[in-house]
Amino acid sequence: MNTALPPTKYGVVVFPGFQALDVFGPLSTLNVLSRDHSMELAVIAESLTPVSTNPEPNTFVSSSFGQEILPTHTFTNAPEVEVLIIPGGFGTRSKVSMAPVESYIQSVFFNLKYVITVCTGSAILAGMSLLDNRRATTNKCTWSLVTPLGPKVEWVRKARWVVDDTPGVPPVWSSSGVSAGIDVTFAFIQMLYGAGTAESVANVMEYERHLDDKWDPFADVWGVTGDLD
Amino acid sequence: MNTALPPTKYGVVVFPGFQALDVFGPLSTLNVLSRDHSMELAVIAESLTPVSTNPEPNTFVSSSFGQEILPTHTFTNAPEVEVLIIPGGFGTRSKVSMAPVESYIQSVFFNLKYVITVCTGSAILAGMSLLDNRRATTNKCTWSLVTPLGPKVEWVRKARWVVDDTPGVPPVWSSSGVSAGIDVTFAFIQMLYGAGTAESVANVMEYERHLDDKWDPFADVWGVTGDLD
Repeated sequence: MNTALPPTKYGVVVFPGFQALDVFGPLSTLNVLSRDHSMELAVIAESLTPVSTNPEPNTFVSSSFGQEILPTHTFTNAPEVEVLIIPGGFGTRSKVSMAPVESYIQSVFFNLKYVITVCTGSAILAGMSLLDNRRATTNKCTWSLVTPLGPKVEWVRKARWVVDDTPGVPPVWSSSGVSAGIDVTFAFIQMLYGAGTAESVANVMEYERHLDDKWDPFADVWGVTGDLD
Repeated sequence: MNTALPPTKYGVVVFPGFQALDVFGPLSTLNVLSRDHSMELAVIAESLTPVSTNPEPNTFVSSSFGQEILPTHTFTNAPEVEVLIIPGGFGTRSKVSMAPVESYIQSVFFNLKYVITVCTGSAILAGMSLLDNRRATTNKCTWSLVTPLGPKVEWVRKARWVVDDTPGVPPVWSSSGVSAGIDVTFAFIQMLYGAGTAESVANVMEYERHLDDKWDPFADVWGVTGDLD
């Protein structure tokens, strides 16, 4: 457990085509934590217009099957954030959707205390060269699409999550696909608030945590193998 | 696998103080399924005003830590729904918030093809006597609060989820606390679309499913024991 006071200012970026569980897995976990701890959350997007889990343009069969979240702030009026959560999703493939997200991340990145990426959220940082010469993981299902975006990243093929705490830059906690965002959030809570608190939140959510950051059957499922790590 | 054509019209009810993962665990799973299957979703609430994960009034320490979802329909103009998802959350304790939800459920319940409840979502049905003489489970953490609401319900103490398919009434798939909603949704997908599809969606989400409906370490964690089942 970290003995410093935990950060209280959380933010999450959202964009059209964000993956719902990438956002709501971590946030639901933090919601439970926030019942007993002082914390603030900013849901940050390009504008205050509701943001859909469906990408633009939407090529899915069920184009009407989606949910919309309401941002609390825009990229231009967002409050100071200490912990930034960056989700993934189909929307990360759109340069148009990602341009304002990248611009915002660029402007705040080096002042952040912690960065948490879920799924292809790490692709956004990789494409901005913010993970160069650093260790990170990502979605195993889209491995071959994402990893070329960051040729200088030390991609970890088999990992539920990876913590890179290279000195002099904000630590980046990157996680694997979709549901891995819940596990990395619990690991993060454990570091900041202790194992007892993390276990207590997991019990309230009736969630069986993956405690081993190297647990990753999906690297094999998706054929992400090799001798790089 | 059910050989009949699966239902396509899904709905979820939301209310102030819904539990985020109760909603977005199942929906994120169905979102992935909907990329390849024809499905529609209605997010149904009392009005079209965004609905917060924070209850009203909010007594949590971090009263500003929450998210808002945008409904697509109101209880009075909702389209026909075949599968209704009923989440839980602190908001279920508010008679004011629940009155319109109950009124809507009462009006559609017996025309539904399937009902899925997550966490204290089953408390809503129990309080309306819609689970009388039927088997159901609920959140283990709030067991002693919820189960007295349905004294005639055959509450199953140790279960990740319970399927009650009493003839003549819509089948009710009730699940345990919060994260159990993901597992019950996968079981539901497996029945409707087959094991291969369920496994495929789980692999995309990198989610390790609990396949045994009786798996429930949280019954012991929360002291929900006894000889009733």
